[in-house]
Amino acid sequence: MENLTYTLLIDCQDQIGLVYRITNILYNNQLNIIRNSEFVEKETNHFFMRTEFSGELYEESVMKQLKAALPPEAVIKMSSKVKKNIVILVTKEHHCLAELLCRYQFKDLNANILAVIGNYNTLQKFTEKFDIPYHYLTHEGKSRQEHEQEIKALVNQYNPHYLVLAKFMRILTPEFVADFPNRIVNIHHSFLPAFIGANPYKQAYQRGVKIIGATAHFVNNDLDDGPIIKQAVHHVDHSQTPFDMAQTGRDVEKLVLANALRLVFEDCVFVSGNKTIILD
Amino acid sequence: MENLTYTLLIDCQDQIGLVYRITNILYNNQLNIIRNSEFVEKETNHFFMRTEFSGELYEESVMKQLKAALPPEAVIKMSSKVKKNIVILVTKEHHCLAELLCRYQFKDLNANILAVIGNYNTLQKFTEKFDIPYHYLTHEGKSRQEHEQEIKALVNQYNPHYLVLAKFMRILTPEFVADFPNRIVNIHHSFLPAFIGANPYKQAYQRGVKIIGATAHFVNNDLDDGPIIKQAVHHVDHSQTPFDMAQTGRDVEKLVLANALRLVFEDCVFVSGNKTIILD
Amino acid sequence: MENLTYTLLIDCQDQIGLVYRITNILYNNQLNIIRNSEFVEKETNHFFMRTEFSGELYEESVMKQLKAALPPEAVIKMSSKVKKNIVILVTKEHHCLAELLCRYQFKDLNANILAVIGNYNTLQKFTEKFDIPYHYLTHEGKSRQEHEQEIKALVNQYNPHYLVLAKFMRILTPEFVADFPNRIVNIHHSFLPAFIGANPYKQAYQRGVKIIGATAHFVNNDLDDGPIIKQAVHHVDHSQTPFDMAQTGRDVEKLVLANALRLVFEDCVFVSGNKTIILD
Amino acid sequence: MENLTYTLLIDCQDQIGLVYRITNILYNNQLNIIRNSEFVEKETNHFFMRTEFSGELYEESVMKQLKAALPPEAVIKMSSKVKKNIVILVTKEHHCLAELLCRYQFKDLNANILAVIGNYNTLQKFTEKFDIPYHYLTHEGKSRQEHEQEIKALVNQYNPHYLVLAKFMRILTPEFVADFPNRIVNIHHSFLPAFIGANPYKQAYQRGVKIIGATAHFVNNDLDDGPIIKQAVHHVDHSQTPFDMAQTGRDVEKLVLANALRLVFEDCVFVSGNKTIILD
Repeated sequence: MENLTYTLLIDCQDQIGLVYRITNILYNNQLNIIRNSEFVEKETNHFFMRTEFSGELYEESVMKQLKAALPPEAVIKMSSKVKKNIVILVTKEHHCLAELLCRYQFKDLNANILAVIGNYNTLQKFTEKFDIPYHYLTHEGKSRQEHEQEIKALVNQYNPHYLVLAKFMRILTPEFVADFPNRIVNIHHSFLPAFIGANPYKQAYQRGVKIIGATAHFVNNDLDDGPIIKQAVHHVDHSQTPFDMAQTGRDVEKLVLANALRLVFEDCVFVSGNKTIILD
Repeated sequence: MENLTYTLLIDCQDQIGLVYRITNILYNNQLNIIRNSEFVEKETNHFFMRTEFSGELYEESVMKQLKAALPPEAVIKMSSKVKKNIVILVTKEHHCLAELLCRYQFKDLNANILAVIGNYNTLQKFTEKFDIPYHYLTHEGKSRQEHEQEIKALVNQYNPHYLVLAKFMRILTPEFVADFPNRIVNIHHSFLPAFIGANPYKQAYQRGVKIIGATAHFVNNDLDDGPIIKQAVHHVDHSQTPFDMAQTGRDVEKLVLANALRLVFEDCVFVSGNKTIILD
Repeated sequence: MENLTYTLLIDCQDQIGLVYRITNILYNNQLNIIRNSEFVEKETNHFFMRTEFSGELYEESVMKQLKAALPPEAVIKMSSKVKKNIVILVTKEHHCLAELLCRYQFKDLNANILAVIGNYNTLQKFTEKFDIPYHYLTHEGKSRQEHEQEIKALVNQYNPHYLVLAKFMRILTPEFVADFPNRIVNIHHSFLPAFIGANPYKQAYQRGVKIIGATAHFVNNDLDDGPIIKQAVHHVDHSQTPFDMAQTGRDVEKLVLANALRLVFEDCVFVSGNKTIILD
Repeated sequence: MENLTYTLLIDCQDQIGLVYRITNILYNNQLNIIRNSEFVEKETNHFFMRTEFSGELYEESVMKQLKAALPPEAVIKMSSKVKKNIVILVTKEHHCLAELLCRYQFKDLNANILAVIGNYNTLQKFTEKFDIPYHYLTHEGKSRQEHEQEIKALVNQYNPHYLVLAKFMRILTPEFVADFPNRIVNIHHSFLPAFIGANPYKQAYQRGVKIIGATAHFVNNDLDDGPIIKQAVHHVDHSQTPFDMAQTGRDVEKLVLANALRLVFEDCVFVSGNKTIILD
């Protein structure tokens, strides 16, 4: 058994002595804490803790001790730094997909891309250059439910940790989304909640804003309304058309998505209601 | 007659030869162009030009020549670099007012503050430290129209170039606003069009955004809906309460307002419909 | 005895079980952890922990227990959220001083300004508007040592937690600095380590940089070389003269200084060698 | 003859009437100015002007008229919006090359990549996925001069407008550089002039900076010392190792390089001494 690094995430109602109880168990098991962040959300009186530790871990035993020491509703996740598996959904735009594929190719993604699914075949040839399977599942001639059933069947074959919507321009039904709670990450091409919905760059141009942005978020019930993981912005001016803004925006979108995924893949993101708590 | 620097702003329908005709007149009058920016808004086929020039200016004569050379609807503004006069409206929050007063005190504002008007007296003592008259005009016991009449009467006595709403928390009626077209600058404490209306920091907290912002804009018809001059943002995280966000936000607000005013006072801002064209 | 919030800072060589031992003591004393950040610097194998807790604190007793539980060299600081006391040193430039005075005036500084000391009297009248004593201690006709002796004598009368150099343009001797280890905060008007020394904006202009910055740091041995607390930047372009850059830079400087001080005053800053560890 | 858009760049000593003379010629030739920026650098009394115009251009004739109207030393460049041709030099790091190849692949680069030259073959397979020729020219067993002669011979075959150093980790001799004045663009992985030379992220880590950056610049005489085109930065903290900083830095580097190249390829960049004047 190697001396590895592990991440422990704990999420439960706050009460006195939680940090002590948790760290006591780690200490008794000869595990050394490298980094620890803890946060109590006052509004909900909820306790969130992220701990990186190293040592020889007898996972089952430690898990049992933690469960015994914590409130029954506590969510406890313990993971060695294994790479997450992901499936990417796309439509026609390349920039977010290209960013993720290049990072993956050069071992800069911290995840395995199992497959790419597209409702167009525009990006098929490009994806296959990277030796990743591309599944072209057109939505044409299918009801929304039929199309989603196809996608879901395929995704389930791959059994990924996360689904990444890298400019997937179809609205997912609540039924689809409910099957992957806090496991679908989307990139929206605006600084949410500004410019919800279609054509945000056109909306931004018409409003004459001086800054545009992008938002990476989990997809839960409503479109563009899930817990926000990361946002970034870029300055624009009067001379930029919606086309120019989209060009500028692509750089923001791809980096926000990649950086949000880094947080997700490194187990830094808790979800509390409609918000994220990010501990790193 | 000194050899001064002047700014010329021209705004009309585009046609071929405009730059040539304008610069021909400057040349014939022995005026030297130091800096020139020109932009044609394709959507409206509108021409905007800002020119800084130096030399001995016979203003009336040059103006006459320009009018003769340009389309009849052209808006032509020529000004030496005189400081603009402003009146500031406030409620209770100090940070934007303090920023402007300190800049004024140390000759960093490029404008004269003629007076401050407040609907509370909270900031009176502070304002008077800077030897600026403070007029306390409460809205209590008055109809909105009566209150605005009082303000307008007072403002008109001072006859300022611009009115600056430095966290003035009253909604102005369209009648009031119509008297000062493109002459009222407001600071809104969100990244418009996100979080229009009251309590934007509370809205931002509840939405769980990762970036907050502020917007300086001209006030025309609708609340929070005028031409945007400048925006800026700041990163926030889950640990910040609405109170903390407001604290962070104050720094963004005061600088955005001050920097928007710099652009306005240096004659860099054109208004085209609901947008600004900024040439500097 | 009220139920207050306290901050505990601990800094020692890393060993297994530290978090457990510390939180055990807090638990045994019925103290509730609100927020906890811990970091181990691998390079030095050093342990840093910042804990906010609330409850009824018997400070002497808890301190004794902590000392018994931790390695003998451990540095342990425990403080209720009392405001820090500061003395500010200035020369002629107003912007950083004005920023701190306005924040203080409106209870936005989290510190008490005990006095301002200037080697010119330029800012005396302004300071006194805020009812803060201003001491004009010219350096003219004095050796550096004599001048510093005067300053030190005066500072010692006030006995502040921190000295803030708000554009104090004199180089302090190592002897002076040694008396206030990690207790002098300076604002340097460049993005250190670029443009060390005098006239950084002129240097920046001559080099043709596209971004300028400012750095708030502790002053230890060498000029411009102490542990950096915070940095920020602003874009500039070819049209800005050194004078314009200095104007833009003032906004960056004053906010970087104010925000660095917020971190210092809230006990978020550890010093490790020539670096800061910031836990919040 | 189509009705195309052209860019005109003029660079000469300032004198009265230049804008008039230039725009007079455009007017007389029925050419319509869409966008015009002009700047006089006071220090050198130098005039820079960038004009976008459209219409039917008789290039030779207009050029002749411009030459006759301007001072003899004037540099006049007129170009339709043709794509520039480039050759890219790399060593082993992928991120800047990948960024440029993906943009090129999706017609987002505004340039043709004629070839990639590497002193290692690390990136050969990746480059060839994009159907771009990769030339592996090892420096091993060769003198610096021999190696550069090989590169130069190959570059000259391609005859590109620009050479792009996309993490090419060899220092070029002044002789090589002199053959491509203002035609070599480099990306340096620090916020110049901070951390000149090797291992800037290690230097940044050791200095404990809170912001890292990247700089795209023309390469003229000295290493890391040419005219800066664009800079950008990213916040870092104490927890980031040099390895983490390099990871963060890659995102900054690739975007700064891509955005600097956009300015260069769209003819927005003038060089004046060791600085750039950017008109857009």
